[in-house]
Amino acid sequence: MNFSINREVLLTQLLNIQKGLPVKTSLPILYAIKFEVLEDHILLTSSNSDIAIQIMIDDPSLKVLQTGKAAIPGKFFIEIMRKINATYVEMALMEDKLLVIKADRSEFKLRLMDFDYYPEIDFLDLDDPIVIDSNVIKTIVRETNFATATNEKRPILTGVNFKYDDNHLYAVATDSYRLSQKNIKLRTHSKQFDIVIPNKSLEELSKILDSINEDIELYINPNKVLFKLNKIWFQTRLLEGNYPDTVKIIPTEFPVSIPFNKEDLLQAVERVSLLSPRDKETNYNIIKLNLNLDKVVEISSTNNEVGDALEEIIPNGDIKGESIKIAFSSKYLVEALKSLNSPEITLNFAGDIKPFVIKGKLDEESLHLILPVRMD
Amino acid sequence: MNFSINREVLLTQLLNIQKGLPVKTSLPILYAIKFEVLEDHILLTSSNSDIAIQIMIDDPSLKVLQTGKAAIPGKFFIEIMRKINATYVEMALMEDKLLVIKADRSEFKLRLMDFDYYPEIDFLDLDDPIVIDSNVIKTIVRETNFATATNEKRPILTGVNFKYDDNHLYAVATDSYRLSQKNIKLRTHSKQFDIVIPNKSLEELSKILDSINEDIELYINPNKVLFKLNKIWFQTRLLEGNYPDTVKIIPTEFPVSIPFNKEDLLQAVERVSLLSPRDKETNYNIIKLNLNLDKVVEISSTNNEVGDALEEIIPNGDIKGESIKIAFSSKYLVEALKSLNSPEITLNFAGDIKPFVIKGKLDEESLHLILPVRMD
Repeated sequence: MNFSINREVLLTQLLNIQKGLPVKTSLPILYAIKFEVLEDHILLTSSNSDIAIQIMIDDPSLKVLQTGKAAIPGKFFIEIMRKINATYVEMALMEDKLLVIKADRSEFKLRLMDFDYYPEIDFLDLDDPIVIDSNVIKTIVRETNFATATNEKRPILTGVNFKYDDNHLYAVATDSYRLSQKNIKLRTHSKQFDIVIPNKSLEELSKILDSINEDIELYINPNKVLFKLNKIWFQTRLLEGNYPDTVKIIPTEFPVSIPFNKEDLLQAVERVSLLSPRDKETNYNIIKLNLNLDKVVEISSTNNEVGDALEEIIPNGDIKGESIKIAFSSKYLVEALKSLNSPEITLNFAGDIKPFVIKGKLDEESLHLILPVRMD
Repeated sequence: MNFSINREVLLTQLLNIQKGLPVKTSLPILYAIKFEVLEDHILLTSSNSDIAIQIMIDDPSLKVLQTGKAAIPGKFFIEIMRKINATYVEMALMEDKLLVIKADRSEFKLRLMDFDYYPEIDFLDLDDPIVIDSNVIKTIVRETNFATATNEKRPILTGVNFKYDDNHLYAVATDSYRLSQKNIKLRTHSKQFDIVIPNKSLEELSKILDSINEDIELYINPNKVLFKLNKIWFQTRLLEGNYPDTVKIIPTEFPVSIPFNKEDLLQAVERVSLLSPRDKETNYNIIKLNLNLDKVVEISSTNNEVGDALEEIIPNGDIKGESIKIAFSSKYLVEALKSLNSPEITLNFAGDIKPFVIKGKLDEESLHLILPVRMD
């Protein structure tokens, strides 16, 4: 193995492949990046217990003098590529033990791991994929992933449920205290599916998609999904088990609904949360929302040790309904509001102790729901 | 107590007073800011085991309706002032139990602590101060404080030693592995002193000085120093004990001296450090510098587990001397280089196992010294 390439080109892909490296593993070889140099391109592979990534580099700057393969310690290799500031880097193997990296006046000799120990990664190899625009995936992750559960009490809730049926992609996430869903009509149409993707995998995927704007082919089997891009393959395990039927917990009747300017509401909620008491179970700040008969909306918190906070907000339009008095974790409202694009949003209430729904004028496809907490 | 003031004006001073609040204390009242509202100004006081700060606010925006005093929980109060985005805030006491804060549509009621429990802080009250430009203090802290010891093995080394004698201010810091000193000629002249100021206090002081540009009056007694600014008093305890005589460890003869472009050297050192082994005692990266007879300077590291790194650097001018082979913690060199203003610096060597000295062309007043480690 002996080649040279534009450093930035290689670094960009190393930062993508890095997302497949394990933080901790009982199989040390996985700390390595599987590096395969062929006639006219390079194949990079990384994998951990959740994710496997393969990237193809066929940049014009690539000059291959000798093909070959190596298992290169990922962390150090990436650090070196970051710190070097040469335009081009040369790499060659030394007795299959060392990777020699040359750039300007720098020379690194990096100990290799045993390539033969690197496990065979089998990427799904199936026919007729579902094709989805990368922006659709990005949007779904941005608007639902934050609502997944972080603790493992109910593992199935640590992922986002993706359902596809006659041209509609339906994504939902809930930690059983709040729920975020997105319902998108797709131009393509193909066979239906119903899968749950781990939130960590989605986070890494969306980072990789950040700078990418192309169609993605999805290949799905009962325990994996492969996202196939032009040069990048991203495969993740799926969560096992049946995702709860969330539709039935979403109220359909909303006797009270209040329009707000999102930014005003957000700031008021964040201020009131400063002094608010913590919910025992979730340890999040609890605040109260109160609509009086005189049509004034108050957001408040009461904390016997620290003090009280009260905000008056002027609704951003006509209020529907009479009065409401409800308490909830401010964090859930803040996160829901931040995920919405609309400057104008509405809070829709089914009752003082019923879940309430947040909708955005420009976010027809999105719905956010928050369960109230009982007030003492 | 009842007054209104421009929020930004108050917040700016709260962020200064905050630096005197304890992180942890057995005397809870110190978590409060001592707040005294007088006819035409406000006095803020905070204090912890090291530092005491008093700030006078006499901004034109201050409108005092009623004088008074209160011990206000610092953390929450500052958080509230940050989050409010009104231009003006109104504050009043409610039965000496609550501070009522009003701004636009926000109202906060903050529980107060018992003012009478706040300890009497005695700021030094002496005559004929030493007057020093705030920029001199900032420079000294920036160029020496990083070299103080972080562990308490030798408490005296956790501070910077300030010596003043016939118009020269001499500041030195060392953790016994490296040393940084600054020697400044002052225009004013007054009685001599020799004190050691804790590094944490200097860090907080320099943050406060960041936005300030005025003369500072220094008042010193055997265990405290008071930095008196126009509106801010900053007092810190001094470290007890005699500071070691560091002058004798600084070599005076340098058979070898090599000029470098600072940025080139810095980057080469940082790259080589990536793979370098750790020093058992300090756990810092050890690198080698090697000047061959063929006048090539090499910086390198050898790590049996990970690999080797080698950088060739072209000196930035004529080399004095024949050859040198020395090993040291890269962190010390990096920190010294970063603290220097000169783009051109020289490394001056007294021998392979003797301390070496870093000087900058534009930094005549500064000197940095690093002790080598034995090579295996």
